Amino acid sequence: MDIGGSKTEAVALDDTGAIVASTRLPSAQGPAGVLRTAEQVVEDLARRTDRGVDEFVSVGVGIPGQVDRDRGEVRGAYNLGIDLLPLRERLRERTGLPVGIENDVTAAAVGAAHLMGLSGTVAYLNLGTGLAAGYVVDGRPLRGAHGVAGEIGHLPVDPLARPCPCGQLGCLETVASGSALRSSWPAGGAHPGHTLLAAVDSGDEEARAAFDHLVRGAAASVRLLVLALDPDTVVIGGGLRLLGPRLFDGLRATLDRWSTDSPFLARLELSPRVQVLPEDSSAAAVGAALAVAGDDPAGAFGASSGVGRSAKRPACRA
Amino acid sequence: MDIGGSKTEAVALDDTGAIVASTRLPSAQGPAGVLRTAEQVVEDLARRTDRGVDEFVSVGVGIPGQVDRDRGEVRGAYNLGIDLLPLRERLRERTGLPVGIENDVTAAAVGAAHLMGLSGTVAYLNLGTGLAAGYVVDGRPLRGAHGVAGEIGHLPVDPLARPCPCGQLGCLETVASGSALRSSWPAGGAHPGHTLLAAVDSGDEEARAAFDHLVRGAAASVRLLVLALDPDTVVIGGGLRLLGPRLFDGLRATLDRWSTDSPFLARLELSPRVQVLPEDSSAAAVGAALAVAGDDPAGAFGASSGVGRSAKRPACRA
Repeated sequence: MDIGGSKTEAVALDDTGAIVASTRLPSAQGPAGVLRTAEQVVEDLARRTDRGVDEFVSVGVGIPGQVDRDRGEVRGAYNLGIDLLPLRERLRERTGLPVGIENDVTAAAVGAAHLMGLSGTVAYLNLGTGLAAGYVVDGRPLRGAHGVAGEIGHLPVDPLARPCPCGQLGCLETVASGSALRSSWPAGGAHPGHTLLAAVDSGDEEARAAFDHLVRGAAASVRLLVLALDPDTVVIGGGLRLLGPRLFDGLRATLDRWSTDSPFLARLELSPRVQVLPEDSSAAAVGAALAVAGDDPAGAFGASSGVGRSAKRPACRA
Repeated sequence: MDIGGSKTEAVALDDTGAIVASTRLPSAQGPAGVLRTAEQVVEDLARRTDRGVDEFVSVGVGIPGQVDRDRGEVRGAYNLGIDLLPLRERLRERTGLPVGIENDVTAAAVGAAHLMGLSGTVAYLNLGTGLAAGYVVDGRPLRGAHGVAGEIGHLPVDPLARPCPCGQLGCLETVASGSALRSSWPAGGAHPGHTLLAAVDSGDEEARAAFDHLVRGAAASVRLLVLALDPDTVVIGGGLRLLGPRLFDGLRATLDRWSTDSPFLARLELSPRVQVLPEDSSAAAVGAALAVAGDDPAGAFGASSGVGRSAKRPACRA
């Protein structure tokens, strides 16, 4: 499952890694609310697959914040009202199932690589409320020493140097994210992306400048990921996908323009590496299940192979 | 061996990964010169270990430029006068030994992790003529899809926006590298680092500004590596080490100052991750030998374990 600030999305995978059921509930807030929602989606998936909860093999949870997989704890998931939650143990107690937890962006990277059939090194760039990346190398998540690999949203890059909630100035996240969009286009109301594009189309110069700045920030994030990690593919996902082809075409055009000025960048072939995560792909929920199954020595399949057979009755992973 | 712009350094390792002999020759230029020097250091190591060249098990070569390990080719090693050289095959012909090639910074990362006994994820930050990083994850080099992972020197970050030879403006390499130092302190002569520090000590404001800018660039490189990859350790090496404790103390103080302003950075504990590569450690030469031995299925030891036993007479790797 993927526990987000507004909704919790969950899928049941069979032992080939295929989705056999899915569900979505509003996320309740706070430790108790998050646990209740998580338990509910597991029960819901059991009903939808006509099984008992005890027939699931394992539960993988993707969640924002700092995820300590050794301790099974989540810290600082502030959009869920969580300061500290020993999520693994609490959810194991409630479901009776083995539980694994994963940073939501890393989970989405694993899911995207699986669903899109991408091999080698994959960087997933989440342009959501915030900006962050997750990595998969040869089918396995690359998490870093403390699970914060990919926190590129808090690299200061922008000479406009707008204050970032992290305490620094001009972070990537202040340029290319949902929160950046809301700051730069406060007239946008509930759908700032659509309002912004409409203003661009009506010839509004300020809207054009705001949109271009956002596109450049997204392109800078791709360049950063390629130079830092050299992924075969950079997959773009997150809420800013709602800006659609205009965002992606603009991003690719920006990368190509930079490459015209720099033979070094041209050799890196930046824009051909960029792919867009299909909408409604449930990548984070799928990736959370796969990443946890891949960690489980008794698991029927690993995240890298994606397919395998258990000797038992075909099982489900929520 | 580590083939650098001015010198070629080589070590012979025994089958425990310990150095049993070392040598250093000036690097001749161009494809023919580079091959001749490489052959000479192998012969020299054979003499110093009282063996025939044919008693070495394999040769690992670290070299700058774009290293295509699949094809065994080096491209664009301009400081060696090399546009394209099929180094692996040519050196195999000359020595009769299996040859593996590796980007020099990645080789140094492998060597640094081995020599300093570092486990987990290690990022090696080379502050040399240029600026680049190499990575080791659980004992194995992380090279990326096309061997360019770690080319962070060409990320534009500096509002001063000095032109970079890569065609972009304000790259990290224009701030914190030997070439940056020579541009910002052209009065420095043959030893710009020492001349700069002397000027700082004499109260020269411009020298102070140039030094501070360089230190901030080095600190920004560490922050970037931690946010992008979350390494357990960032090892700093390269020619700028000649600036000594002033550079490293300044770098750590800068990271600590940034962390005072940002609770987010404070949680990442940046400065405790920084270590300095000991001088004269031959890290790149050691790492080239280890990386190639680790790739060799018949190898007596892997880069990750570092120690092993061959059934044959204890062998040497050059």
